[in-house]
Amino acid sequence: MGKKLTKRTEDYSKWYNEIIVRADLAENSAVRGCMVIKPYGFAIWEKMQAELDRMFKETGHQNAYFPLFVPKSLFEAEEKNAEGFAKECAVVTHYRLQNDPDNSGKLRVDPEAKLEEELVVRPTSEAIIWNTYKGWIQSYRDLPLLINQWANVVRWEMRTRLFLRTAEFLWQEGHTAHGTKKEALAEAKQMQEVYADFAERFMAMPVIKGSKSESERFAGADETYTIEALMQDGKALQAGTSHFLGQNFAKAFDVKYTSKEGKQEYVWATSWGVSTRLIGGLIMTHSDDFGLVLPPRLAPIQVVIVPIYKGEEQLDAISEKVSGIVKALRAKGISVKFDNRDTFRPGAKFAEYELKGVPVRIAMGNRDLENNTVEVARRDTLEKQTVSQDEVVDFVEGLLEKIQDNLFNKAISYRDEHITKVDTFEEFKEVIENKGGFVSAHWDGTIETEDKIKELTKATIRCIPNDAKEEAGACVLTGKESSKRVLFAKAY
Amino acid sequence: MGKKLTKRTEDYSKWYNEIIVRADLAENSAVRGCMVIKPYGFAIWEKMQAELDRMFKETGHQNAYFPLFVPKSLFEAEEKNAEGFAKECAVVTHYRLQNDPDNSGKLRVDPEAKLEEELVVRPTSEAIIWNTYKGWIQSYRDLPLLINQWANVVRWEMRTRLFLRTAEFLWQEGHTAHGTKKEALAEAKQMQEVYADFAERFMAMPVIKGSKSESERFAGADETYTIEALMQDGKALQAGTSHFLGQNFAKAFDVKYTSKEGKQEYVWATSWGVSTRLIGGLIMTHSDDFGLVLPPRLAPIQVVIVPIYKGEEQLDAISEKVSGIVKALRAKGISVKFDNRDTFRPGAKFAEYELKGVPVRIAMGNRDLENNTVEVARRDTLEKQTVSQDEVVDFVEGLLEKIQDNLFNKAISYRDEHITKVDTFEEFKEVIENKGGFVSAHWDGTIETEDKIKELTKATIRCIPNDAKEEAGACVLTGKESSKRVLFAKAY
Repeated sequence: MGKKLTKRTEDYSKWYNEIIVRADLAENSAVRGCMVIKPYGFAIWEKMQAELDRMFKETGHQNAYFPLFVPKSLFEAEEKNAEGFAKECAVVTHYRLQNDPDNSGKLRVDPEAKLEEELVVRPTSEAIIWNTYKGWIQSYRDLPLLINQWANVVRWEMRTRLFLRTAEFLWQEGHTAHGTKKEALAEAKQMQEVYADFAERFMAMPVIKGSKSESERFAGADETYTIEALMQDGKALQAGTSHFLGQNFAKAFDVKYTSKEGKQEYVWATSWGVSTRLIGGLIMTHSDDFGLVLPPRLAPIQVVIVPIYKGEEQLDAISEKVSGIVKALRAKGISVKFDNRDTFRPGAKFAEYELKGVPVRIAMGNRDLENNTVEVARRDTLEKQTVSQDEVVDFVEGLLEKIQDNLFNKAISYRDEHITKVDTFEEFKEVIENKGGFVSAHWDGTIETEDKIKELTKATIRCIPNDAKEEAGACVLTGKESSKRVLFAKAY
Repeated sequence: MGKKLTKRTEDYSKWYNEIIVRADLAENSAVRGCMVIKPYGFAIWEKMQAELDRMFKETGHQNAYFPLFVPKSLFEAEEKNAEGFAKECAVVTHYRLQNDPDNSGKLRVDPEAKLEEELVVRPTSEAIIWNTYKGWIQSYRDLPLLINQWANVVRWEMRTRLFLRTAEFLWQEGHTAHGTKKEALAEAKQMQEVYADFAERFMAMPVIKGSKSESERFAGADETYTIEALMQDGKALQAGTSHFLGQNFAKAFDVKYTSKEGKQEYVWATSWGVSTRLIGGLIMTHSDDFGLVLPPRLAPIQVVIVPIYKGEEQLDAISEKVSGIVKALRAKGISVKFDNRDTFRPGAKFAEYELKGVPVRIAMGNRDLENNTVEVARRDTLEKQTVSQDEVVDFVEGLLEKIQDNLFNKAISYRDEHITKVDTFEEFKEVIENKGGFVSAHWDGTIETEDKIKELTKATIRCIPNDAKEEAGACVLTGKESSKRVLFAKAY
């Protein structure tokens, strides 16, 4: 407590790490690149899960669970997918430890317990799932198959950052099978919409919906739809992706169905996922130099009440008034914490909840008792105001909505100010270098140009926006013909 | 469809496997010993999770998430725990695959990507968690620390069975830290009560609460509290355990706190868990020769409504009546499915829901339309009765309660009939061999006798019941002194 956070303008990356540690969200673990998600951070993830799970079920999906391990021979069946993930796979080779012969209390891997076939710890589950779907799909009556799983996955990343890129992370992965290309495409697009809706309505994080260029596509996909958000340092964050997998996995795992017409056809597939990375996006979208700022719809504690008192008697009088307010707020489905710990002073509590991003703080002191008032402070603007106790419940209910809206509007203003149209490569470099954000530019459609631009500026194509207009133009690097603008940015 | 299940009396184990497959609960996967939990099975697990999670939170616990991997050096820190699990550990030794030099499309483990220290896939998380707690606990103010995680764990079992014993399984593991022995003991016992309460009120599965003998204790625990259920084949199932870990992990990981008096003290610990094994217990407690029988409180679908019609017009008339019933049932929080698929006949649907254990089935045909009635069938007793449409909603609400109670009472009768007091080893063997169930017998308290009895009868001490009375007696095997009876059984 007490020590100020590093300012965003000073060192954005340091500020980010400090918030995570001081708001008690997560920390690095003893395992390289793996994090521990602490209770407060996990409570945010639980809120995200609950909403997403509801949205998935409303769109007809069911949850299931598939094995953590993928036998190497299955893993390599879809070549592009295998190639894309092979370099970051944790591999189980043995199934037993033994005591050292010297009885030192140290264990060692038992050389006699070597697996005949190595097991890959899933970096994503297409292989194991499509190998299973082979047994589940025979006829058009078995389609569509709409399944999701909540799981941990492992990708052995060399440079990791809490929430944004960790060796193990938590996510959900939807895996669907359809009778036609059209249906599978519609599913992949629908899930992009679900993700965008969740990001904007719950995270208050505006996103741009688009599709990935070929080189940024998921390994094994024919098309990757993405939602891209913009962080306060001008870097983009890929927040969720939904893939149209064509018949690639159906062919790799020989999954066919008998159509209504009695023909044998390969199945069409999608997969889609969001992960604990979203928490990184949430932090970087709203938080400020005083700490975390949480949108009310995802805040584990929406309202905290702090008593300001001298002696037991005052505390009792305040507690009595507070208990009515707590009850009334909870009846409206608002989560409230009454912090009556006597081991901390009000000032320390204020600092703690500011750091933890609790949207609304109510303070009640002796003067408030006399005047039938409370002091209400909002975390987003740091404004305070005195409110009658008779009105505070309705006031807070409205305020939570206002805060949710304000955070979204602020984020959308920032984002919109940081989409810059450029027509020359000089401008391009200038914007990427100094202003940051998305650069909307013409591109000739080749991987070579994309690579070259990345090499020169570190910016990549974040997406070809769904709503990009046809517009004759010239590639910002090569001057070659282009028919629409795409969005570039430096990205996490 | 159509083909009858193997009868329980014919081949209990085959019956069990057939139910799982035909009720669409789970199946074996391509990975040795790992299962795929199918949507219907997973929906039961979600219901279990929701209730347990609520109970954990009501008793003050918070969820968090710790890494999947445990570095070998941490894993071996608590010797007994390490020894207990070493023989069934999946071990990650490499972090990359590479294409074969011959470019065959096959991948191989990259020998240059060998980990400096091997990583154990968690068989249980005490080691990684206590290594983390070291950083979280300094003062008595940090205690108690009450944390739970929902996770997958891996134990390389040689003989696996769906739900009951799989190499990977899903569970929750609570890990708490306390300032005193008394508090930690109270926590361990409290969680045993929570598990028993869940088993009995939700699973309708009666359990005996007790503690384990030394040789059946969790590796690294000073005391293991267990809940033991009885399956219909007379074998016991350990359904959940709660461990008092003493200061074993605090000492292994050097976790001390400063007490109120300013002294440095080692922390006291508990851990407790239940897993997807509970689904195996649920199946074996209630199901019959016609299929799965689910207690209403855990049934993903509590009521199914099947229309019996000829032609569109009748279906429309039935659907209209049904929609009112569906709405009214849902308003009471009852989950209902109206199965109006025209690809299956009513008889096939009846068979399907019988197999899947849906507690209540409502059928409505043309005659019912005329008479303003429906036919209500309950899955537990297979009884049917005609009920007025005006009363069906209240009737079904009451019936679901009745079914829940009936299942519990039936199970408790069976269980109580299968606790047999014996005083000679002849009787002991006779009961274990022919009648099955729990045998209540005197035991001299030694591991040697326990081992000998196991060798001779395959029965193990399931628990020393919490409510065992002091009673002077002689060990059923050795005749040595004993002061209380313990429960033996063959077990899963």
